[in-house]
Amino acid sequence: MPHPNDPALRSFIPVDPASDFPIQNLPYGVFSAKDGLAPRVGVAIGDYVLDLWELEQDCRLPVTDLRIFSASTLNPFMALGPKAWSATRARISELLRHDNPELRENPELRARALVPMAQVTLHMPIAVSGYTDFYSSREHATNVGVMFRGKDNALQPNWLHMPIGYNGRASTVVVSGTKVRRPRGQLKPPTAEAPSFGPCRRLDFELEMGVVVGQPSPMGEMLSEAQAEAMIFGFVLLNDWSARDIQQWEYVPLGPFQAKAFATSISPWVVTREALEPFRLQGPVQEPVPLPYLRQARPNNYDLELDVALRAADMNDGLRICRTNFKYMYWSSVQQLVHHASSGCAMNVGDLLGSGTISGPEKDQRGSLLEISWNGTEPIELAGGIKRTFLEDGDSLVMRGWCQGDGYRVGFGEVEGTIVAAE
Amino acid sequence: MPHPNDPALRSFIPVDPASDFPIQNLPYGVFSAKDGLAPRVGVAIGDYVLDLWELEQDCRLPVTDLRIFSASTLNPFMALGPKAWSATRARISELLRHDNPELRENPELRARALVPMAQVTLHMPIAVSGYTDFYSSREHATNVGVMFRGKDNALQPNWLHMPIGYNGRASTVVVSGTKVRRPRGQLKPPTAEAPSFGPCRRLDFELEMGVVVGQPSPMGEMLSEAQAEAMIFGFVLLNDWSARDIQQWEYVPLGPFQAKAFATSISPWVVTREALEPFRLQGPVQEPVPLPYLRQARPNNYDLELDVALRAADMNDGLRICRTNFKYMYWSSVQQLVHHASSGCAMNVGDLLGSGTISGPEKDQRGSLLEISWNGTEPIELAGGIKRTFLEDGDSLVMRGWCQGDGYRVGFGEVEGTIVAAE
Repeated sequence: MPHPNDPALRSFIPVDPASDFPIQNLPYGVFSAKDGLAPRVGVAIGDYVLDLWELEQDCRLPVTDLRIFSASTLNPFMALGPKAWSATRARISELLRHDNPELRENPELRARALVPMAQVTLHMPIAVSGYTDFYSSREHATNVGVMFRGKDNALQPNWLHMPIGYNGRASTVVVSGTKVRRPRGQLKPPTAEAPSFGPCRRLDFELEMGVVVGQPSPMGEMLSEAQAEAMIFGFVLLNDWSARDIQQWEYVPLGPFQAKAFATSISPWVVTREALEPFRLQGPVQEPVPLPYLRQARPNNYDLELDVALRAADMNDGLRICRTNFKYMYWSSVQQLVHHASSGCAMNVGDLLGSGTISGPEKDQRGSLLEISWNGTEPIELAGGIKRTFLEDGDSLVMRGWCQGDGYRVGFGEVEGTIVAAE
Repeated sequence: MPHPNDPALRSFIPVDPASDFPIQNLPYGVFSAKDGLAPRVGVAIGDYVLDLWELEQDCRLPVTDLRIFSASTLNPFMALGPKAWSATRARISELLRHDNPELRENPELRARALVPMAQVTLHMPIAVSGYTDFYSSREHATNVGVMFRGKDNALQPNWLHMPIGYNGRASTVVVSGTKVRRPRGQLKPPTAEAPSFGPCRRLDFELEMGVVVGQPSPMGEMLSEAQAEAMIFGFVLLNDWSARDIQQWEYVPLGPFQAKAFATSISPWVVTREALEPFRLQGPVQEPVPLPYLRQARPNNYDLELDVALRAADMNDGLRICRTNFKYMYWSSVQQLVHHASSGCAMNVGDLLGSGTISGPEKDQRGSLLEISWNGTEPIELAGGIKRTFLEDGDSLVMRGWCQGDGYRVGFGEVEGTIVAAE
């Protein structure tokens, strides 16, 4: 049987070469259709969602517990572990192949199991157990450092020695399309004598990838590179909405709190680690060489293109304001996970690890408005007369990501969020 | 019917005046007995645990869903809301009163529903949804500030304006009695040129109270003082184990991460907010006056005595190393919760909010070894020749807390943790 990643595979479902969801991808999500059934697990293929619960009822999948795919999150499926992930993906690939009549020639099952994507609602794909946010792009950390501390002290002394991260708030991780209310908070501009409380004036996005942890690790134990990698189920696009002014006043000495607690948006489709395998590459040289527990025997970065478009309420189309690549990340997701568990911190099924803002070496590769507008000093023009330093009410932000294969792409769809006014 | 907090109430169960669990307390926990049944919900009374599942099966409680008390956490009960909390507590109080024959004169039910505490195992009382740790003792923040920044800059500029806090790691919140493995991590003493990786050498405790949030609040909405208070189900003792050396190297600029991720211990009994009501008092004067969203119309502090004892492996009894009071906290739990939701951060049933280390104005009221040993410069003597600056392997730490009434005390039992060597 050909490997599900084989570039030569074709599905009997027509898939445009520019589609994010060819047979080489098969990302998992949670959807509901107009049938009135509760949200359940599906896989994206072209312009359709493949209903895994229907396939499972028909005994077409290697997972026999019907509750796995009738669940409203991917957590029960993830808990089955990497062998089940691989076997299920291989079987789905087989069922969708152009040369396999099993599903193709079964109109009754096709009608039940293939739902046009235009007819479904996509939900949060996972129950987020813990949300952790890293800060692992050297270019991003350097840009921020230059802005606030000057060129000579841009990187903090610890930054090159470990993936710096902090615990975020899991309760406000939401799926693409969820409106984001402008947060209120304590603001104290440098010129003000005392703080005031009001709507954030420097609302920003951060372009990130999110790692979805699919297996647990026990309290008190460390992880090897191989163990950490095996725990990674897949990846999502992630927008770490940030209130720069709230953060500026609150973050010393315990880090960001309310500035990041109001919303984090993720894409509805979780692209599996296995589907990204052909796009794996070596990340930036790490100098100084990391401490032994953080050393990697193999490349753990990915060639994954990213872009961000911003659309003001009175524009028809968004303007692309960033185009970068996940490959620039200094610390890999595997290193992040190894470091996360290094103190003995238990990891759980459904943990979500934000990569940190992904900026690249070029000016148009900056993954936040803080960097793009250089702390508000260089407004960008979106359309005739419409300028931005930070986000305004009604602004809609769309992030996209994909790995480009030869004649196909393994894509993530998008993560969209629109800002609504503070109450 | 007398109020369950009435100091004149007596139970037919004999309760020593020094017991933490008189009829005025009735804290909730999760226990298992030798009957082989799964962990379920109980209430402490004297030296017994009252099995709520058995009472409920007998239709003796105002909660009719059998799954509420057969659950292995308090979360389903908490989700019922404050009216159910009050009604259940009132009914349990009634059943346990000395002048009520209903349970007292029913030997069959007594045998089923009253389990000697010596025969039970106590489990984690709640499923921790999110764990947040604050930093709200002015004395603690000042001590730490003086140590690291000198007297003139002891408090950070934001400290008097908001309850400073950060998100902690929910996956490693454990119940009293769980062994705590000494964490490993990156250490970089000031004299070292580069960091190394190894066992923490400055392992500490932090004496805190934990607020258990029993009701949710929606994303995008703020809370009033009254709303926040009504969401608080109860309180536990909390030990926020801390690796000072790991923290020192990792925490700039995003706050504590692995230094606090390896373990947080809580007491098994959740004392309800209602039971603490008679011990409510006004906290310290807040100057400057807080911003309007943080102002309190009523006293939200509690007169709650606390002590900490440390026992080295070769000592028979622990030595008391701290004696303080929860009343010293500058920011109240209600203010912490209001601030937590102020950006629109959703709160969930089972959220746990650490108060921050509780130190008092006196030297013997310091709630961490960092302060007690003044950053390791003033070792304390535990017993002949046994000295400590930070915790050593085999050390056992016990925290206790109670509100002293007239002839009775509403107590928390204890939270204990023993350090085991790094692997």
